[in-house]
Parts: sequence; C-alpha cells; structure tokens
Amino acid sequence: MAETPVHRLIIVGAGPAGLTAGMYAARANLEPVIIEGKNPGGQLMGTTAVENWPGEKSIQGPELMAKMRAHTQAFGCTFQSGSIDRVDFSKKPFTLWTHKNKELKAQSVIIATGATPKKLSIPGEAAYWGKGVTTCAVCDGALYKDKPVVIIGGGDTAMEDASFMTNFTDQITIVQIKESLTASQAMQKRVLNNPKITILYSTAISGIEGDEKQVTNIVVTNLQTKEQTSIPANAVFVAIGLSPNTDFLKGQLELTDFGYIVEKGHTKTSVPGVFVAGDVSDPVYRQAITSAGTGCAAALEAERYLKE
Amino acid sequence: MAETPVHRLIIVGAGPAGLTAGMYAARANLEPVIIEGKNPGGQLMGTTAVENWPGEKSIQGPELMAKMRAHTQAFGCTFQSGSIDRVDFSKKPFTLWTHKNKELKAQSVIIATGATPKKLSIPGEAAYWGKGVTTCAVCDGALYKDKPVVIIGGGDTAMEDASFMTNFTDQITIVQIKESLTASQAMQKRVLNNPKITILYSTAISGIEGDEKQVTNIVVTNLQTKEQTSIPANAVFVAIGLSPNTDFLKGQLELTDFGYIVEKGHTKTSVPGVFVAGDVSDPVYRQAITSAGTGCAAALEAERYLKE
Repeated sequence: MAETPVHRLIIVGAGPAGLTAGMYAARANLEPVIIEGKNPGGQLMGTTAVENWPGEKSIQGPELMAKMRAHTQAFGCTFQSGSIDRVDFSKKPFTLWTHKNKELKAQSVIIATGATPKKLSIPGEAAYWGKGVTTCAVCDGALYKDKPVVIIGGGDTAMEDASFMTNFTDQITIVQIKESLTASQAMQKRVLNNPKITILYSTAISGIEGDEKQVTNIVVTNLQTKEQTSIPANAVFVAIGLSPNTDFLKGQLELTDFGYIVEKGHTKTSVPGVFVAGDVSDPVYRQAITSAGTGCAAALEAERYLKE
Repeated sequence: MAETPVHRLIIVGAGPAGLTAGMYAARANLEPVIIEGKNPGGQLMGTTAVENWPGEKSIQGPELMAKMRAHTQAFGCTFQSGSIDRVDFSKKPFTLWTHKNKELKAQSVIIATGATPKKLSIPGEAAYWGKGVTTCAVCDGALYKDKPVVIIGGGDTAMEDASFMTNFTDQITIVQIKESLTASQAMQKRVLNNPKITILYSTAISGIEGDEKQVTNIVVTNLQTKEQTSIPANAVFVAIGLSPNTDFLKGQLELTDFGYIVEKGHTKTSVPGVFVAGDVSDPVYRQAITSAGTGCAAALEAERYLKE
C-alpha cells in the first residue's frame, strides 16, 4: 500500500479566511490543499447583498465567495470536498482524518473552520433568513434606518447589537427568554435606560412573519402569562450565540471556555505549525474582511514556519 | 469666530486601512472624516497588477484603490485633502492641525498613515519602479519563477525576501553595502549556506538597467576594489527598510524604536480613543488585505469607544 503523501500545508475551511490563506500559500508555492468542510464559502453563502467588502458597493454573498474561490484555484490551490472529523497534532507530520476516514498528512495546518450561528428553530426563521433575519448587526444594520427591529438574546452580543442599532433607529426591542440579562455589567449599561431600547424579559420569540419579501413582524410569548403578542419588526437580529466549529479539535489545541481556538499572537496556536484564521478564533469582529486579513497572515506564518 | 466643530471620528490616511475604516465607520453612522494625506490610496498607487486582493485575480493598484474610495464615499464618508502636521492627544476632544494649520477636533481618531519604503536614489530606480523594482517579495515574487533576482539590503526584511524567493528561483543575489549582514541570527540562518542564494558584501547597487518594459540587469560597485560589474536581474527587491509615517505623532503616542505605533491589542494605542490600522503599526505582514482587516477592526473599536 502506498504511503500517505505529506502535504506542506493543509487548510481546513473554505470561507474568506481559508480561501485567502489558500491564495497566499499557493502564490508562495506551498502547494496547499484546502479541505472545504460542510459549508464551503462559509457564512456569506447564506447572505444576499454584502455591502462591506471593501471595493464592492454591493455584491451577493455567494458571488463574492465564488470570485474568491476562483482566484485561489487560479493560483494552484487544490480543493478537496468533505470535512475533517479527527486530527492528531501530537506528532509530526500532523495527521487529519476526513469524515470518510481518509488519512491526510501535513507539515503545517491552518484551521479556518469558522463558527456556526445558533438558530432559533421557530416558524418563519428559515423562510426569512437573509430577508430580515440575520446574525450580523454590523453588516446589515444600515438597511434598517428608522425601522422597527428586534434583537433576540440577553448576552453581550445582543447588547452590542442593540447598542449598534441605536445609530440607525429608535425602535429597538430586545427579546430575552430569561428573567434578566446575562450580559456583563459594562455591556448592560449601554442599553439599560436607553430610550431607544425596550427590553422584554421572560419572553420567547415564537414566530417570524412577513410579506414573503421581508419580515414585517414577530410573534412573542410571555412565559409567565403565556400571552402571545405581535411586534412590528423589519429585522430580527439573532444574537443567541455562535458555535465555533472546533469539536474535532478537542484535546488537540487549546480552546477557550466557549470553544474558540486560543490565538497566541500572529495566528499561532498552542501547537507550533498549526495556525488559525477567521471566526474560529474571533468572537469579536466576525467580518469577512477581518477573516481574510488573518487568512493572509496565517499563510505567511506557515510559509516562515516551513522554512525553519 | 465660529467654534471648531467636533467630529465623532477623524481617520488619518486613505490607503486600504483608512478607506476600510471609513467605510465601516460611515455604515455605523459615525459621519467620519478622512484626511487623505500626501499619498491618497497608499502604496498600491505605485504598483501595476495586484494579484493578491482576494476575489480579484489581477487588478491594477490604482483601480483597486479607486473602487475602495468610491465605496467609502458612497456610504457617506467625507474626504479632505491635505495632511496632518501636528496633533494634541493630551486632552479631549483631540486636536489635529493640517499642513495649512487648519484646526480639526474629534472625539476619536484612527491613524492609518502607512509607511513609506526607503528608496535607493540611483539611476533607473524611478523608471523601473513597478517594472521589476519593488518592495514586496510576497506580492510580486511569483512573477519571477526561474528568473534571476536581486535583493538589496542585509537586514531581516532582506533575509525574509531572499528566503521567500527560494520558493521560485535558484538565482538569487543579495547585495549588501556593509561587510556583514545586520539581520538577526535566526534570519541569517535561513539564507547562509543556501545554494540558491549568493551574497555580495561591501557592495553597492549603482544603477538599474532594462529594456524599457522591464529590468534586465543591475550595476553594482565593489566598495573595496571600486570595480563595477553588471548582474542579470529581472527583479530588484528593495529591502532597505520602511519609514512609518509617524513624525507628527512623536511625544503623543507610544512608538517603537523604529517609529511604528505600538498596538496594544484590538487596534488600541497608548491613548484611549486613538486607534491604529495598517502598516503604520505593522512591520510584519504589510499587505493590503491585512491592512483592510485592521481598518475594519479599528472602526468597530472606535464605534464601541464612542458609546462608552
């Protein structure tokens, strides 16, 4: 049986971070291989108009990702479909196994598997995803000037989103399922006593309704009285958290309590030779352009590492 | 006399970092003002084909920057020509003075003034800038597969460039004006005893020659024998350092020994409310995409700061 070939660099994930890493690494002649994962293209594949990719006033998310993929491929990066289920980073070369148990080996690895927004799993969410239902206030907030919007959640991200939306509208409702907010005091301060923001406690969102083109209102249930109410809303910012896609890395790389990869500066992880890029280590900015920036940095770090 | 208006955010510099910061800040309704500086568009204005902006297989540097500028302007960012000569960050609001001594005030500031590559100031340098003479091996290296190239300099950047070019060619000459290298030991290790790399010590580059379309050879002078020699070369990587554009910030922000702004994590500087993006705090990656990524981050940090 033939020996498993040892690649110089394997990149896991094909969103803005992974594709940019692949493009830079291919240009550096590292002959990188990208394992595309369950969601090639990443979170932008689920969006419509992207207005914050520098240089593109408005571009459809899937179109932007197709351009990036073509660019990366043009410079000689190899793509493999499928995802990585298991890794062994304890010895070199590193070993990765695909979901079909195929073994891959590499001298260096970039993890760019991103994060998956948690969903509400209520009627209307899937139908209006990208038509008002979104996870990114920074991306889409400007579309809802002077419109009623709701934020779902009571943690830091929800406070951040509500605070950000005060730049655009004074009709902001936070829907929190618990009796109190779970956000840090500093973050709560930004929204409490703000006349633009109403908070509904002990309240669950039970449905999202619209006119087929966009969201028009949501249905909420007061958990104490069981009363249902309709609230006008053109945007629903789902801020109940993200799950970084790191299940396959447990015990192999240092992770935070929330499952994000701990980045040790300059895209390095707890294992020399394994680098990280994009949302999988970034719970703060989560933008395509910041992910692409770290993808570039990770590729240049991998190139330097391989020379040592 | 009317009081000087206080802007919420002033961005100094209009390269990839400043323009991305302006676009994000404008989308967040901060009504940012960009002071364009002496070189609007930044270092990419002096390049021809850019092949490493994700999604664009090949685009002229000035065209990419024009697209970014139009995008930023479309979202309502204001541009002012001229540069900043002097600032007072010791009290709030911050004060900035233009080269015409016009006073500007802002609650928050993003510094994105970039860095200026040091030039050789020899015959042929200006004529062949962007036609083989370049400061970025990572950007242009792939264009010179199996071609003779020279690296000018003996410091870390020169070693880095020479090492990077071994990915493409085995005809690499380092021209070092001093009797020995000045790079760190670790960096020297990568090039010494590498059969692909020749080092000429005590040697100055005295001219760059070509066929009008591109560089064909350089003329070097041995400083001990005064002998002049012609060396075939299709690329000249000028690696004698960059000057971060921070003269106007001395005494106002913490700078490194080399004049770069010290970044304290998350684009923060030594002065709360003053943020930094791009090459002016990055001697390591110096890419348009990494600069744009930090520009986005700085704008989001400024937005958060203004809410506090």
